[in-house]
Amino acid sequence: MFSRSQSSRSLSSTPEPFASRRLAELADHDAFIKRHNGPDDSDTQAILSTLNIASMADLIEQTVPTDIRLGRELALDEPRSEAEALDYLAQLARQNRVAKNFIGQGYYGTHMPAVIQRNVLENPGWYTAYTPYQPEISQGRLEGLLNFQQVVMDLTGMELANASLLDEATAAAEGMALCKRANKKNKSNAFFVADDVFPQTLDVLRTRAEFFGFELIIAPAESLGEHNVFGALLQYPGDSGQLRDLAPLLRTAAEHNVMTCVATDLLSLVLLKEPGALGADIVVGSSQRFGVPMGFGGPHAAFFATSDKLKRSIPGRIIGVSKDSRGATALRMAMQTREQHIRREKATSNICTAQALLANIAGFYATYHGADGLRTIAHRVHRLTTILAHGLKQVGVALAHDTWFDTLRLTGVDSGKIHGRAMTHDVNLRFLADGDVGISLDETTTAHDVALLFDVILGDEHGLSVARLDENVVADSVSGIPHACQRESGFLTHPTFKRYRSETEMLRYLKRLENKDLSLAHAMIPLGSCTMKLNATSEMIPVSWSAFAHLHPFAPRDQVAGYHQMIDELAAFLGEITGYDHISMQPNSGAQGEYAGLLAIRRYQAAQNEAHRDVCLIPSSAHGTNPASAAMLGMKVVVVECDRDGNIDLDDLTHKAEQHRDTLSAIMITYPSTHGVFESHVRAVCDVVHQHGGQVYVDGANMNAQVGITRPGDFGGDVSHLNLHKTFCIPHGGGGPGMGPIGVKAHLAPFVANHAVTPIEGVQATSGAVSAAAFGSASILPISWAYIKMMGARGLREATELAILNANYIAKRLEDSYPVLYKGENGTVAHECIIDIRPLKAASGISEEDIAKRLMDYGFHAPTMSFPVPGTLMIEPTESESRYEIDRFCEAMIRIREEIGNVESGEWPLENNPLVHAPHTMADLMDASWSRPYDRELGAFPTEAVKAAKYWPAVNRVDNVFGDRQLICSCPTIDEYRD
Amino acid sequence: MFSRSQSSRSLSSTPEPFASRRLAELADHDAFIKRHNGPDDSDTQAILSTLNIASMADLIEQTVPTDIRLGRELALDEPRSEAEALDYLAQLARQNRVAKNFIGQGYYGTHMPAVIQRNVLENPGWYTAYTPYQPEISQGRLEGLLNFQQVVMDLTGMELANASLLDEATAAAEGMALCKRANKKNKSNAFFVADDVFPQTLDVLRTRAEFFGFELIIAPAESLGEHNVFGALLQYPGDSGQLRDLAPLLRTAAEHNVMTCVATDLLSLVLLKEPGALGADIVVGSSQRFGVPMGFGGPHAAFFATSDKLKRSIPGRIIGVSKDSRGATALRMAMQTREQHIRREKATSNICTAQALLANIAGFYATYHGADGLRTIAHRVHRLTTILAHGLKQVGVALAHDTWFDTLRLTGVDSGKIHGRAMTHDVNLRFLADGDVGISLDETTTAHDVALLFDVILGDEHGLSVARLDENVVADSVSGIPHACQRESGFLTHPTFKRYRSETEMLRYLKRLENKDLSLAHAMIPLGSCTMKLNATSEMIPVSWSAFAHLHPFAPRDQVAGYHQMIDELAAFLGEITGYDHISMQPNSGAQGEYAGLLAIRRYQAAQNEAHRDVCLIPSSAHGTNPASAAMLGMKVVVVECDRDGNIDLDDLTHKAEQHRDTLSAIMITYPSTHGVFESHVRAVCDVVHQHGGQVYVDGANMNAQVGITRPGDFGGDVSHLNLHKTFCIPHGGGGPGMGPIGVKAHLAPFVANHAVTPIEGVQATSGAVSAAAFGSASILPISWAYIKMMGARGLREATELAILNANYIAKRLEDSYPVLYKGENGTVAHECIIDIRPLKAASGISEEDIAKRLMDYGFHAPTMSFPVPGTLMIEPTESESRYEIDRFCEAMIRIREEIGNVESGEWPLENNPLVHAPHTMADLMDASWSRPYDRELGAFPTEAVKAAKYWPAVNRVDNVFGDRQLICSCPTIDEYRD
Repeated sequence: MFSRSQSSRSLSSTPEPFASRRLAELADHDAFIKRHNGPDDSDTQAILSTLNIASMADLIEQTVPTDIRLGRELALDEPRSEAEALDYLAQLARQNRVAKNFIGQGYYGTHMPAVIQRNVLENPGWYTAYTPYQPEISQGRLEGLLNFQQVVMDLTGMELANASLLDEATAAAEGMALCKRANKKNKSNAFFVADDVFPQTLDVLRTRAEFFGFELIIAPAESLGEHNVFGALLQYPGDSGQLRDLAPLLRTAAEHNVMTCVATDLLSLVLLKEPGALGADIVVGSSQRFGVPMGFGGPHAAFFATSDKLKRSIPGRIIGVSKDSRGATALRMAMQTREQHIRREKATSNICTAQALLANIAGFYATYHGADGLRTIAHRVHRLTTILAHGLKQVGVALAHDTWFDTLRLTGVDSGKIHGRAMTHDVNLRFLADGDVGISLDETTTAHDVALLFDVILGDEHGLSVARLDENVVADSVSGIPHACQRESGFLTHPTFKRYRSETEMLRYLKRLENKDLSLAHAMIPLGSCTMKLNATSEMIPVSWSAFAHLHPFAPRDQVAGYHQMIDELAAFLGEITGYDHISMQPNSGAQGEYAGLLAIRRYQAAQNEAHRDVCLIPSSAHGTNPASAAMLGMKVVVVECDRDGNIDLDDLTHKAEQHRDTLSAIMITYPSTHGVFESHVRAVCDVVHQHGGQVYVDGANMNAQVGITRPGDFGGDVSHLNLHKTFCIPHGGGGPGMGPIGVKAHLAPFVANHAVTPIEGVQATSGAVSAAAFGSASILPISWAYIKMMGARGLREATELAILNANYIAKRLEDSYPVLYKGENGTVAHECIIDIRPLKAASGISEEDIAKRLMDYGFHAPTMSFPVPGTLMIEPTESESRYEIDRFCEAMIRIREEIGNVESGEWPLENNPLVHAPHTMADLMDASWSRPYDRELGAFPTEAVKAAKYWPAVNRVDNVFGDRQLICSCPTIDEYRD
Repeated sequence: MFSRSQSSRSLSSTPEPFASRRLAELADHDAFIKRHNGPDDSDTQAILSTLNIASMADLIEQTVPTDIRLGRELALDEPRSEAEALDYLAQLARQNRVAKNFIGQGYYGTHMPAVIQRNVLENPGWYTAYTPYQPEISQGRLEGLLNFQQVVMDLTGMELANASLLDEATAAAEGMALCKRANKKNKSNAFFVADDVFPQTLDVLRTRAEFFGFELIIAPAESLGEHNVFGALLQYPGDSGQLRDLAPLLRTAAEHNVMTCVATDLLSLVLLKEPGALGADIVVGSSQRFGVPMGFGGPHAAFFATSDKLKRSIPGRIIGVSKDSRGATALRMAMQTREQHIRREKATSNICTAQALLANIAGFYATYHGADGLRTIAHRVHRLTTILAHGLKQVGVALAHDTWFDTLRLTGVDSGKIHGRAMTHDVNLRFLADGDVGISLDETTTAHDVALLFDVILGDEHGLSVARLDENVVADSVSGIPHACQRESGFLTHPTFKRYRSETEMLRYLKRLENKDLSLAHAMIPLGSCTMKLNATSEMIPVSWSAFAHLHPFAPRDQVAGYHQMIDELAAFLGEITGYDHISMQPNSGAQGEYAGLLAIRRYQAAQNEAHRDVCLIPSSAHGTNPASAAMLGMKVVVVECDRDGNIDLDDLTHKAEQHRDTLSAIMITYPSTHGVFESHVRAVCDVVHQHGGQVYVDGANMNAQVGITRPGDFGGDVSHLNLHKTFCIPHGGGGPGMGPIGVKAHLAPFVANHAVTPIEGVQATSGAVSAAAFGSASILPISWAYIKMMGARGLREATELAILNANYIAKRLEDSYPVLYKGENGTVAHECIIDIRPLKAASGISEEDIAKRLMDYGFHAPTMSFPVPGTLMIEPTESESRYEIDRFCEAMIRIREEIGNVESGEWPLENNPLVHAPHTMADLMDASWSRPYDRELGAFPTEAVKAAKYWPAVNRVDNVFGDRQLICSCPTIDEYRD
């Protein structure tokens, strides 16, 4: 800080600081680096001196084993400014072409209401929030997700829905697994798939079924009754657009103890009889067309709905209604401990990340339109389709079916000529291998578009008039929906779906919900293993661009050249960063990445005639998803112990590798370890496994501690997934989207996921897909691209160094109050640190959960609780947090330690103190019967900083037991919790 | 509401409601109308029945005089959907071309930091807020504006700065008027203008001076000492880019009692000696290049800084530091009663609207960059300019001056050839009439651009290398800034300008400030006469588009074809809506529109040889701006009385019109009246004035009650201004931007403002400008265009009807609690209603201000206080508020009336009750010494709705007296109020 006179001296008495500097230095290429990283140079120096470490180089020297250090800067471009990066991305975007899309096949044009776009998708208050594990500070997005569930339940007619899955294809695969898990009556190992499911769905099902060991029977839906199967998947409407009355088929299936899963389309269900009424056990599909752009394949929220009897086995996250400690209605994630946590190596699902942001958007779309608005949209789509069908029939074009909602299939046409005219008019149709042509209409289709379609299909001189056809359709009351398929029930009858019809009301609703939630826009979210770093605005901006948002994943290759170039460039960046030879951009979550990575290993080994290698070594400290992923690939999990420093026990590893040498497939390790330490013998671990014929899977969850300093591909990894939503700045979105591409060594490259609809170069043709779209959630990839481009090699390395510095700073500042559980050989931690609450709990009775909730009163999100070690908190500050914020956090933690001291000392009783009553709400302040041994101010405003900028938890501590016991996952009829 | 079974019945037993409807009906053209308007059909029916009125037609019949009703639908297009309107605007945008701009002349390229763009410019929490007249719920934007003032003070070296004016040219004109007002020592009537001020500034000065009766002396700056003048305007750097040491000139001026105003450029001041140190009395300029796009001329924030001795005469709004009732630091608008309120018909300024949103953005730009960041930018701009200058000199190009910051003037060049090459390269230079060429560099200029400039100026084979030139410049320490002009002092030393350097910190700062303020994103803002309606997201979206944002106002005509078409279309819409023949889009505020309208009258009358007509009749109920505007045009204001129903007293009018028949220039009326009533004899009023040779000015403030129902151009108006930021959806931005185009009858059309730099077709050449840019704040015009396009004739009429309906609903619901002061002949009000607090105050001692503050506790912004009648509240709900929200507001008002009852009855003492203590803050809840006769809950959470969604005023009631007495308008050194 300098006063006017000082600064005047410094500018006149020393050489003018800028005059002698070269233009290149003034170009300020580091501008974004300084925006991304929290500590500036002086903060860094101050922290280093607190740590008693001379320089950043020394810190890294002490922390990262010498034998794995990169020893050079990454070979990436110089950092680019935000404006330069956006200019370049705009150039790429211009190489994409937004045609009129009638391809359909699970992806449809839609209008995202502008009020939702600006105030949810483009609002950091929504997109930087974390998964709502802490319900007291997540009531806004929990309500949005509950709305989503209600929309799905209402439209599908099912009793329960989860809060989204990754895409329709994987949802169908989860449906298949659930049929197997839940069907106790039919022991068949075969699963029936109707031959008119979407090809990309079938592709994913084939992959999953192969390693589950299921036989897939693919046949016409009508033949379902002829097969002995544990479950069946039907599509409604079918891939071709055909509508059939599923009720008889589903009835027969039930009689034969066949569980049924129906893949469907939410908009069509506005007019179609709901699958629940037809007798389905499970209903899946995509909510993309509820306001979420196609985005070249994603992200969108898939839905998964079931009958009530399946409620304890439903995959993914479910939002439930419970109450708080004052009895007020409070939402929470019900049954958040899922399949992979409970069953680990016996799991048949590894799903973690959902598509929370997109599910919220789809839910809000329905909330904003209401039942009447959705009816208007669905009827218009159907009417236009009917006009199209009638016109075509009138001039003699044959349709494959005489039923439809929004999709027609033209048969016996000259598809070559149609294709030519379509290209001329910038119109995308679906051209099938057999010469048929598919056409799907959507919300964005206009009467003018239908006229254009006549021109494209028939040439110019067809003589058809949309207006005249419309008259006929009205006069004859024609519909493509057979009577048996017509919906008879209402939907969206809850008041929530009736009130927010004006933009003003909707805006206030969205802002009200936003303001209930704590996000990165409020404070640090120090979640260990989650890497809640800055999601920079410039990274987010391109996601909204039409030329990225409105591309169909199956659009012709020449329309998506910009996307391919961006993806190729990003893959090259990630390859250089990780040291792998090839990057597969398909997996759309971290867990999906694990699956895809192990899948590549399994396929590679099979190609080497080593398909019998099926043992997967997993350290005891691993995330539950690791064994679940292995289990889904039919692997046998063998646990490797850790030593008391938390490191992999090399002796135990060697012993087990030897023991299983003939069947050893792989090891899954996390690096730095989930204990927050750079294990010094990681090379040895990799070597042991390689020596015994195994492959090394390095979980990328902690990649943020490696970038620019070490590379998994260099120290022994054969494959890793990367959580782009952790290390590479894709925001967490309140619980998704994520993106989990994998990097592999060259020998594995042919075995990564391919895609049946849009085959991927360099991948063997027989490799099936793991996700619905070839490049997963393509439309959020510009985020990671921009991050890497704007940081450059120098910026990325500095970010890693600062992430490690910040973590060590926290460990240092907190060590007098809380023991730090694990450290490296030189006494440093990696990019996160685990503090042990068990001794404190033993002494005081105060738990890690009490601390987590009490932090809310101080305005912070809790660190990760009890992972990987029960009774601990794992803190990860990331490089983006400033020293100011970290100090604020540490001061809160130290104050909380003092508060625990008051319980220890008996000053406050264990059952009545600010920790066990945390978080405090406005209701506490109003409590006229307040009789606690501390005052309201200490409860809600423990520091001056809090007084100046208070974030209020919306509810008191949520009652998990109550919520689990009384599982309610629909919008509550008691409306009190929403104003 | 329908249950599942009911709906099932209704869908199957009656004809399917959509099957028989035509496609056109399903197209849902009314979709946006339903989003814009709050009440839906059933609400409308419910409200009508509360009012005991059978239909909307009856309501209008009873409210609007028959003899002025339009009797037909407006001739506008059918309503368009949001997507259609945006598609069309995108087409227009594509007709604009964003070239590389080196024109300068007050408008420069700049990068708006993305975090500011998304979280301020594109965030309804910022842009829908109102002018901070209620400081307790405006602390966020007040802090932002205080930062802006501090930035201006620091960079200009002045002791005081206001919170922005409309543009640099009008700021200079205000400077001239202030010189006259404040200069008591020099009675000259002449004002000196240096001949190197920007041409557009001179243009506006000429207009103002003419009607103030000042003589303008335009001469070289150096000749200032030779003239006897009351004031002088110098430009620094000059229009040509030249830098001169102003100190000797300013010193001499001071010695001769000449007050001095320096127009300057904020970015240059980073390197230049500050005008305050040079001796200027007033410093003005534009903050546009601090992150605000050029926008084809606006909006941007002009600044106005003065020495301390001028603090009581500074025009515009000033933010000051005061304290609240608990002694905490609190910001407020200091001296908010300005020139036009105090001096009315003697005023020499009518400025109301500021450019709050843009001032906030400029302030945040400086906050985010800090002194170091600004230095880097300024040095880079200067270095590149120096390289350009050196290169050109090296190859023999003559420069008009050998000093520069960022602007060069090339002389003796072949400007024709340069022009040709510039067009080829899509480069805009400034081509002067004398063949010279001006080039200005800016933040966005790169080394590559300088190389391009060499190509453009010299042709391809110039042999110059930017890198080599850079070496020479560094080696020789060359600078274009003479030693005497080099800055020696520091700036932005306050902690606020040092902390928010990372995007994370900046984001949290912006969100923290946002959340202190109440905006339309929270609740209804029922400000009478301000029309706080929905600012729809779709209307706002095009403002951010590059092809609207990044155009220079003086770009070649062929690059701005899309803008011209949009403006022409909007003008045609507004002409049809108002019944005027011509629309002038230049005035950038309502007050500016008044000035421009009266100016057209004055010029028209002068052309008729009736320049002596100078009497302006103004009803006693008029807004203070009306007489101030008249006074600025040298008119004599004669007040016309109102009768006891609040209507213009026709007898008094007739009498005064006759009395002044020889000198009658005009009448200024507001319609419906400021009393919220459609006066039945408005035609007669207009006729009387016309009969006596006068023109009729209809103030457009209440246009929202007229659109589609009546037209000022039909019932007698000759000219009106339109507040696009009221009726036509431009958001209030927390106190600007506004936009005040005027509509005129054909006889006045040649006399509206022209523009010296970019002449306007159809306007006489001698008509000078009123604003710096030809089309005022052009970049926000798409907002109004989109509103009209999406509503269509039907939607606009329905909006007006609903605005009237909602106002009558409020009048009805409140009439038992508060007397409604004025009603029309049939007992209805127009679009707003005035409730009389005087009887209540007499009975209880509780004032209208207490009620206003108490409403904050209920989560609402106060209605307009004491305008037009002291001791009243004027409530305007607009059509956008839902019945739900209006009911919530009315219930709050009724509860407050009951609370007043408790004071009346003596249950609560007058000095200790929730009304006089309002608003309540968190500090009240923490008050351990609480001893009031009501509990905390009643104070802060008076209703269940408030408990569910509490908005917290950031401070207790602000002490105005303290703040006025101790005027502090800089960032306080006590930092407590910011976190």
